[in-house]
Amino acid sequence: MSSTQKLLAGCAAWALLASAGAASAMDKEWPIYGGNYANWHYSTLTQINKDNVKRLSFAWARSLGNAFSQETTPLVIGDTLFVTSANGPQYVMALDAATGAIRWKVELEMPAGVQQYACCGVVNRGVAYSDGMIYVGRLDGAISAFDAKTGEEKWTTEIVDYKQGSVITSPPLVVKDLVISGFGGGEYGARGYIVALDKKTGKERWKTWTVPGPGEPGNESWKGDSWKYGGGTVWLVGSYDPERNLAYFGTSNPAPWAAHVRGPNTSDYGPFTNKWTAATIAINPDNGAIVWGFQGTPHDAWDYDGVNELVLVDIDVTGDGRPDPVGLKADRNGFFFVLDRITGKALKADPFVYTNWAKGFDLAAQRPIEDPAKRPGLKKRAVDICPNLIGGKNWMPMAWSPDTKLVYIPANNLCMDMEDSEVEYKRGSFYLGKDFPTKPGPGGYLGELIAWDPVAGKKVWSIKEKWPFNGGVLATAGGLVFAGNYAGEFRAIDAKTGEILWKKQLGSGIHAAPATYEAGGKQYVVVAVGRSETIPGFLGEIGRQMIEAQPTGGMLFAFAIE
Amino acid sequence: MSSTQKLLAGCAAWALLASAGAASAMDKEWPIYGGNYANWHYSTLTQINKDNVKRLSFAWARSLGNAFSQETTPLVIGDTLFVTSANGPQYVMALDAATGAIRWKVELEMPAGVQQYACCGVVNRGVAYSDGMIYVGRLDGAISAFDAKTGEEKWTTEIVDYKQGSVITSPPLVVKDLVISGFGGGEYGARGYIVALDKKTGKERWKTWTVPGPGEPGNESWKGDSWKYGGGTVWLVGSYDPERNLAYFGTSNPAPWAAHVRGPNTSDYGPFTNKWTAATIAINPDNGAIVWGFQGTPHDAWDYDGVNELVLVDIDVTGDGRPDPVGLKADRNGFFFVLDRITGKALKADPFVYTNWAKGFDLAAQRPIEDPAKRPGLKKRAVDICPNLIGGKNWMPMAWSPDTKLVYIPANNLCMDMEDSEVEYKRGSFYLGKDFPTKPGPGGYLGELIAWDPVAGKKVWSIKEKWPFNGGVLATAGGLVFAGNYAGEFRAIDAKTGEILWKKQLGSGIHAAPATYEAGGKQYVVVAVGRSETIPGFLGEIGRQMIEAQPTGGMLFAFAIE
Repeated sequence: MSSTQKLLAGCAAWALLASAGAASAMDKEWPIYGGNYANWHYSTLTQINKDNVKRLSFAWARSLGNAFSQETTPLVIGDTLFVTSANGPQYVMALDAATGAIRWKVELEMPAGVQQYACCGVVNRGVAYSDGMIYVGRLDGAISAFDAKTGEEKWTTEIVDYKQGSVITSPPLVVKDLVISGFGGGEYGARGYIVALDKKTGKERWKTWTVPGPGEPGNESWKGDSWKYGGGTVWLVGSYDPERNLAYFGTSNPAPWAAHVRGPNTSDYGPFTNKWTAATIAINPDNGAIVWGFQGTPHDAWDYDGVNELVLVDIDVTGDGRPDPVGLKADRNGFFFVLDRITGKALKADPFVYTNWAKGFDLAAQRPIEDPAKRPGLKKRAVDICPNLIGGKNWMPMAWSPDTKLVYIPANNLCMDMEDSEVEYKRGSFYLGKDFPTKPGPGGYLGELIAWDPVAGKKVWSIKEKWPFNGGVLATAGGLVFAGNYAGEFRAIDAKTGEILWKKQLGSGIHAAPATYEAGGKQYVVVAVGRSETIPGFLGEIGRQMIEAQPTGGMLFAFAIE
Repeated sequence: MSSTQKLLAGCAAWALLASAGAASAMDKEWPIYGGNYANWHYSTLTQINKDNVKRLSFAWARSLGNAFSQETTPLVIGDTLFVTSANGPQYVMALDAATGAIRWKVELEMPAGVQQYACCGVVNRGVAYSDGMIYVGRLDGAISAFDAKTGEEKWTTEIVDYKQGSVITSPPLVVKDLVISGFGGGEYGARGYIVALDKKTGKERWKTWTVPGPGEPGNESWKGDSWKYGGGTVWLVGSYDPERNLAYFGTSNPAPWAAHVRGPNTSDYGPFTNKWTAATIAINPDNGAIVWGFQGTPHDAWDYDGVNELVLVDIDVTGDGRPDPVGLKADRNGFFFVLDRITGKALKADPFVYTNWAKGFDLAAQRPIEDPAKRPGLKKRAVDICPNLIGGKNWMPMAWSPDTKLVYIPANNLCMDMEDSEVEYKRGSFYLGKDFPTKPGPGGYLGELIAWDPVAGKKVWSIKEKWPFNGGVLATAGGLVFAGNYAGEFRAIDAKTGEILWKKQLGSGIHAAPATYEAGGKQYVVVAVGRSETIPGFLGEIGRQMIEAQPTGGMLFAFAIE
């Protein structure tokens, strides 16, 4: 079985194996950022389980070379682990997965000053792998391909001019012979698009604007020329359903944040939905055609960026006794959406955190039911809007366990006031037009790890966290959920009950999602540590306290049962 | 027993306890950089020992906030651990010694650009403690005092103008009511001195030039005005013998490195010994009077900086059956000196690494027997000089075990060619005058952890290391030696045999010395990780390989038996 076949087979075959509780050679790896194409962040490995996790021990550490904003999740292919770092020099390292020893390390040369175009952290979330090649999105708007064995650079292709405010921080999605990626820039008035490159040569194969231009369907959802700087960028990971041959990507907030530029800034915004921003889109990976789009926050006025990942599962949501092919999305806007992943229709929409900007989501109209008092505008200050702009969930990955049928969401409990100002587009500069003081959400906690039943649309258990912006999640067939938090605690949690079975203080805030794999007969759990340098700056007094509470970091830690 | 009494009693009482193998409440702490006033880097704790060290587990980590050049050894007073970081912001943190939780953190505000005056790394090696106060040497040439409970700043006193090229990187020595410190600058032509400040008020109590001025004894050892920029700075930790009331400090290389500026640059330099550079001096801490000086490298021409610590032990070197009060010094120049610590006379001098610049050390004349071919000069290239300028041992602490009667030396195996050039003093700039390409020492290894019998003057066992500039050492009554290396391996070693009983990869190079303490009934071993940013720059091609081999780091790791 070739590596390509293995990765391609990943989603369907692996999901079956997972359901059966069986482990194969393939399960020993962590072949893609989300664990599989379906973005489950789940492993069938059981050597580390809820009965023995108390004995989980430190195996090795590897410095990521810089202290700030470590958001990477490693891949493991065979016995090699691939990990990235971005702050300072951006590099890719290949490590012995059992010992952490460095096999190769390549630094990606960056133009001076590229960091100023990373709105929300000079970060990198990892690489993609296919057929002996490693693919990495670069801060300077290019994708590079490396030989996975040697680190030799095979090609580098610029897909966007970073000077417009567009950096790449997430791994591309590799489907068949294509490397598919977007970029950031929703805060700089970039107009989003997705590019597919030939995985062997790096040559462009197709390019699809996420914000339609004149003559394209959806352009009428924009006021005047506002589509030109309309945001809707794709800066996080995609998902892929091989059976339907559909790739799914979230799109960012529209630009500017101030909505009056893009249409009438009222809750009756009519057709001015600003497609496809704050949305999930399904794409035919063969040609880039947008098959459907779903906007969680049409005509967004709150920076409810829609990039959050779509997790593909087959569960019976309709109640007819048959599994439905759906996508799960914990949206920044506070709603947990269950989408029909063939049609893009929301089947369910329930608030998973305290949410008051909308009183609900009208499934018939497929639109949120806004509270007009919570929509900010020019000279109109809306107060106590929940969630705040970092959202009920930010980019940190949630995990799905096919064993518990629960999804584990690293949630935030923050609110805000918000008021708009006039703003003009200037290339490469922030294009926002907002004042947005942060306030704590109700209940005396700022974050929450939520075990969510997507069929019932209900919380099953949760762990309240002192701080927001906590770490991504990993679920395993060992009955465990692994999650770090901003306070630096890395925990193994009973997936069914939420009981914390094991925890260690890793010295800095944890944002990244852990991964797990088997090497040399031993199961390892790895997690990158190092708090965000940039995000606290968006959070006022709470952010100041976050900076005080936690030094920056920069290590990859590996644990195993010894 | 007050904290002051505890610290004062430290040396004598603690040493006695150590000899007896007993442990008291006092032994649970790590009250001073070197473990005790005698700089043993030894603990009487035995909970972690050679029988159970295989079960040594990760307890917690705490990020030091920056990736580079971590050289700190924490103190532990009661249940609080005090640790510093210097690269980026310089700060002091107080942690819960059992959990690593932050109790307070203070950042020392630094003038912009101070880093350019740190020749050999923007580093800090830790704090001193006395009577509820924490004292820290600052990069900007000042000492600050903080309330140990709250972190409240009590006073800050500038002791040197950093703009002459003088930063402070090591903890002061607190003796009675005085805080005693020197500073760096031997590479910038600073003229060394030591200052004592009142520990309550920070007011200067005395100041002693290490390089004597006109009219002072020793000034005749300098050619012309060369004493004015003569180096001999004191930038590392001191030792203290309470019984003799003598404080011991090493002094740096003379400045400039090129010797012809300071006297006739031949092996017959006559009286031009350049006192007190490349020396150890004994000081009366009450008034700063220099009681004696011993120059390991008179009229130094190799940058054989003499700062290395003096380790105070009572052992029978003379063979009369009675313990002699001596000081042990593993000099950069390759000789292991056993000094009578009352008179400053060398009783023994044996090369502990491959050494060829001198054929031996004449104990009668108290001078090295130079090989004239190995003395570099203007238009005189000396080749294959061993050791090289980072020395047989650099600043990393060695440890003494009263159980094995061995000293454990983190040694380097490097040689060099060297040639001088004309050089002029310019305030705040490097004042060197040397070309010094590095070469590997003989035998195919670049470093070595050596167990040394100071009475026999012989190596007992050693561990050869791939890289130089390895970590400081800790010895314990548990029969163990703890030492990290540049490759990032942290090891527990059988103190008698040199067998590696346990090791973990900590992700970046280790330079700092570990410490150990007991908190909440559990013994912890802590070590700071993060390779030097600067030193490889002095080591040519070997340095380039060192940079490639190891990412920078920045974590404090704690281990315990669990």
